Amino acid sequence: MKILIVGAGGTLGRAVVAELGSRHEIVSAGRSHGDVRVDLRDAASVEAMFRDVGMLDAVVCAAGAVPFKPLAELTEADYLAGLQDKLLGQVRLVRAGEHHLRDDGSFTFITGILAEQPIVAGACASLVNGAIEAWVRAAAIELPRGLRINAVSPTVLTESMEGYGPYFRGFAPVTAARAALAFSRSVEGRQTGQVYTVW
Amino acid sequence: MKILIVGAGGTLGRAVVAELGSRHEIVSAGRSHGDVRVDLRDAASVEAMFRDVGMLDAVVCAAGAVPFKPLAELTEADYLAGLQDKLLGQVRLVRAGEHHLRDDGSFTFITGILAEQPIVAGACASLVNGAIEAWVRAAAIELPRGLRINAVSPTVLTESMEGYGPYFRGFAPVTAARAALAFSRSVEGRQTGQVYTVW
Repeated sequence: MKILIVGAGGTLGRAVVAELGSRHEIVSAGRSHGDVRVDLRDAASVEAMFRDVGMLDAVVCAAGAVPFKPLAELTEADYLAGLQDKLLGQVRLVRAGEHHLRDDGSFTFITGILAEQPIVAGACASLVNGAIEAWVRAAAIELPRGLRINAVSPTVLTESMEGYGPYFRGFAPVTAARAALAFSRSVEGRQTGQVYTVW
Repeated sequence: MKILIVGAGGTLGRAVVAELGSRHEIVSAGRSHGDVRVDLRDAASVEAMFRDVGMLDAVVCAAGAVPFKPLAELTEADYLAGLQDKLLGQVRLVRAGEHHLRDDGSFTFITGILAEQPIVAGACASLVNGAIEAWVRAAAIELPRGLRINAVSPTVLTESMEGYGPYFRGFAPVTAARAALAFSRSVEGRQTGQVYTVW
């Protein structure tokens, strides 16, 4: 398969490249690194990326930023920043990318444990992740030509504990390599409309 | 209790007024009807409403519009319209309203079955409802002074079947009066971070 991996240079993205790259052709994409550059906040940038890379069998996204702030400090601009990046960025990947996926191709997106299990300062992340998961379930029943769409929801990554550990006290982390297996399960399986939890 | 009901003139809102109004003082709010007028898409309008109504014991929202369109026809503007109205509108009710709620007061918001069970042309509604539910779970752990927040998730209403029936073939509708009971359960109970499903 020819697989586009957005966010390929990140902690999780590198593990997904390692997992899928041993069996498939990988095209890496990112805001500042990769075979192609993309800004998920910009529909024109997403469309240009797909024109550059040609036809694909799978699109994977391991990118998406959301602000972490106490509820009382979250402004409308903070919510919109999270929505524009991690949520609408992945929506844009479908809107532009479905025309560049071969029949029975797949989208595999990133959400996270905060959709179900909140933490202090994580309300914007919860909101965005909950939106992604519900949207993936809905998009799955309308995509044409056997196209599939799933999400992967990891808990905090072992490799990210230095930065995120204080937010996730008591959570058992998983390695990026373990989370990457769920991306493989989506890309190389046949299910659609699923949220693969990794925790 | 003194209870603000946003969307009090709608099909569901009228049933919530009927249920809670028999035991409590109701302040009705809406875009074109009610004791006070409010546009949930406008933070200044939401703030002005709360200044007008004084201190409250509960805020209920039974309003919030989202576009219904096939996935392939949903534009960024459509998604943003749904996000600005039903999702961020309810976020604005908390941001502005928490300062006008007495200790142990509550927010009760509206979501819907599409968060869990998709229909064709409902992807934007699913996305918005999923965001609301995850955000309610997250906001619940950070609200101060014993303030509570829950959501009510009804299936399609019996009274709305003439318009929405074709979207919801095979779904068993519930009456607005039945859905209104879940609002009472949230307002007059003591739980927080819950999604009360009515289907």
